[in-house]
Amino acid sequence: MEVVQVLHMNGGIGETSYANNSLVQAHALAAWGPFCNSLGALPISILPAHILEAERQKVISLTKPITEEAITNVYCSNLPRSLAIADLGCSSGPNTLFVVSELIKVVDKLRTKLGHDSPEYQVFLNDLPGNDFNTIFKSLPNFQKKMSYQLGPGAGPCLFSGTPGSFYGRLFPSKSLHFVHSSYSLQWLSQVPEGLANNKGNIYMASTSPPSVLRAYYEQFQRDFSMFLKCRAEELVAGGGMVLTILGRRNEDPSSKECCYIWELMAMALNDMVSEGLIEEEKMDSFNIPQYTPSPSEVKFEVLKGGHFSIDRLEVSAVKWNDYDNEFSPSDAFSDDGYSVAKCMRAVAEPLLVSHFGDAIIEEVFRRYREIIADRISKEKTQFINVTISVTKRG
Amino acid sequence: MEVVQVLHMNGGIGETSYANNSLVQAHALAAWGPFCNSLGALPISILPAHILEAERQKVISLTKPITEEAITNVYCSNLPRSLAIADLGCSSGPNTLFVVSELIKVVDKLRTKLGHDSPEYQVFLNDLPGNDFNTIFKSLPNFQKKMSYQLGPGAGPCLFSGTPGSFYGRLFPSKSLHFVHSSYSLQWLSQVPEGLANNKGNIYMASTSPPSVLRAYYEQFQRDFSMFLKCRAEELVAGGGMVLTILGRRNEDPSSKECCYIWELMAMALNDMVSEGLIEEEKMDSFNIPQYTPSPSEVKFEVLKGGHFSIDRLEVSAVKWNDYDNEFSPSDAFSDDGYSVAKCMRAVAEPLLVSHFGDAIIEEVFRRYREIIADRISKEKTQFINVTISVTKRG
Repeated sequence: MEVVQVLHMNGGIGETSYANNSLVQAHALAAWGPFCNSLGALPISILPAHILEAERQKVISLTKPITEEAITNVYCSNLPRSLAIADLGCSSGPNTLFVVSELIKVVDKLRTKLGHDSPEYQVFLNDLPGNDFNTIFKSLPNFQKKMSYQLGPGAGPCLFSGTPGSFYGRLFPSKSLHFVHSSYSLQWLSQVPEGLANNKGNIYMASTSPPSVLRAYYEQFQRDFSMFLKCRAEELVAGGGMVLTILGRRNEDPSSKECCYIWELMAMALNDMVSEGLIEEEKMDSFNIPQYTPSPSEVKFEVLKGGHFSIDRLEVSAVKWNDYDNEFSPSDAFSDDGYSVAKCMRAVAEPLLVSHFGDAIIEEVFRRYREIIADRISKEKTQFINVTISVTKRG
Repeated sequence: MEVVQVLHMNGGIGETSYANNSLVQAHALAAWGPFCNSLGALPISILPAHILEAERQKVISLTKPITEEAITNVYCSNLPRSLAIADLGCSSGPNTLFVVSELIKVVDKLRTKLGHDSPEYQVFLNDLPGNDFNTIFKSLPNFQKKMSYQLGPGAGPCLFSGTPGSFYGRLFPSKSLHFVHSSYSLQWLSQVPEGLANNKGNIYMASTSPPSVLRAYYEQFQRDFSMFLKCRAEELVAGGGMVLTILGRRNEDPSSKECCYIWELMAMALNDMVSEGLIEEEKMDSFNIPQYTPSPSEVKFEVLKGGHFSIDRLEVSAVKWNDYDNEFSPSDAFSDDGYSVAKCMRAVAEPLLVSHFGDAIIEEVFRRYREIIADRISKEKTQFINVTISVTKRG
């Protein structure tokens, strides 16, 4: 399977599209944008809106300052006449444009305070070629009008381009970018690792995966992430900055439940269908998710090894998805959860599943997945872990 | 009607899509690319493939040298480490990528001859936000592989972005482009001119249009084209170049048959439907095509008035579409013409018609249009006129 061709969210604005399922409530987005705008948007998407609101302040206080600090440093140390920002893994949803608009607002406030003329803003929205860029592009004229109104007179033009392609290769000219942002995308690998033949019954790393499988996954992550860093190092100006938030884990065990559980539940649905003869066992055994959820030390190791960037921040944040016992009754809070979680996961995983299994089984997979999730999330406590790293390109 | 929202080719790759109708034969495209790749692709699209082949050498000799000369001058006088090329009005068809790939090949040959390291190539494909960028983007991975193979080792990466938006506004940062190409797009106006209430029974300028209508069209062209030149002057580096091919006319009369006939035939189909009560007369009277087909002197006048560019070339070329009496029998050559012409025009005009009249009448409009065209092109001689201008940004 060629990930670059297959991995994309469900496009358009229909019932099963990513745009309609990536976020439960537009209201909550504004605050959670930086956490929800990309390929792996599942952690936030599955949270009901009132829980998003309850967690809102905590997550903002954890990561919004990192991004603001980074773009502030980049602007002040470069003072570019034209500021080039790239959002890598932008996806196609209601908050695709949110992160960059927040970055632009920070810079505009700053340059006003410093008494500088506004830079021109050049924004590159990147995702794989299968991403639904048409929907983003159609929303741009209104978005640009709104931005222009919010920034007021004197602000430079906001010029948007879409750059299709894998961020595990070159996307932009040398020394052409000032700031790179990527949120919930870098956990996706460039390909399913080779050497997973022994991962039978699983679709991702799991507690039952043999060491060779865990090693194959980790080595693929190392190859991919070091290539990512090398390419961005070429594209960023000296003094340019990068803030990456990756779906990851705290634990050094790569098969830890905190990162693997959501896929184990999907494997259960698929295995049930295998045992009923609805899916061939061979098909199931050869299906693996091209993802790796790294620990902070694994991220740090690759950045230091590459030597292109200095590390300004490395932080971990957690998003709980069924641990609201103090505030809500779990059964109340998640009464509709099987449905909404499965629907959101479908927007993320359907292209991968269809590419491997065909589309005939999809409805049944997600019906079962929904039931399994509804059962589990009312009983268990689980967190999603975000690893956020802020780096500066060395001179 | 907001042209920026409505004007686009039929998307996708289905039967009525622009991609499937813009060009009769892939074989012929390679040579004719520069003439067919944009919004107003009708002139070439309606020519059967064997006639394209018959005219091939003449048109290449008329305009390919202009583009090659221009990009050669730009490369040699700037020697950029990264060469930024924009194709404005790229549309979405099999030859969207053809023009820029030819430009890159010219530069690569040149830098090899001169013994220089290859520049990196940054390509911006622009069209209105309603253009089908998804289809272009999905074709990019294979295209880039092919380019990489053709250029061979040592050539810089070819980095593609899509830039949605009207070229009658800013699209790129100041002094960021080296070369701008636009083919068969600039005849499209930013809006239907105001003051066309007296153009009853017509949908474009016509011999029966009152002077006020011709003036309204011309003034809209002047506003739009001068804005286009002003924006590109800001975006191009000093010494940067621009080659624009515009569907136009030779004659100084703006209602000349050489530019207006194709729309007069469509007006006939619509008027027939009005007289039969299938279209409301009011609807017909308020429908006008947002296009202006300028003469060489009108193009020259705006360029000189703006003062940003020096003119290197200004040439006119003609494409005959039913004057092959010497080589073919008209009835043979165009036996299928009503069908193929109407089908191609449909890819161009359907979004405009649907936006104004709704989609219920579309099948019937094009059925009638096809019959009218089949009747006319077997009897009359008509040419499409191309105005090509090559300019250099003043220092």
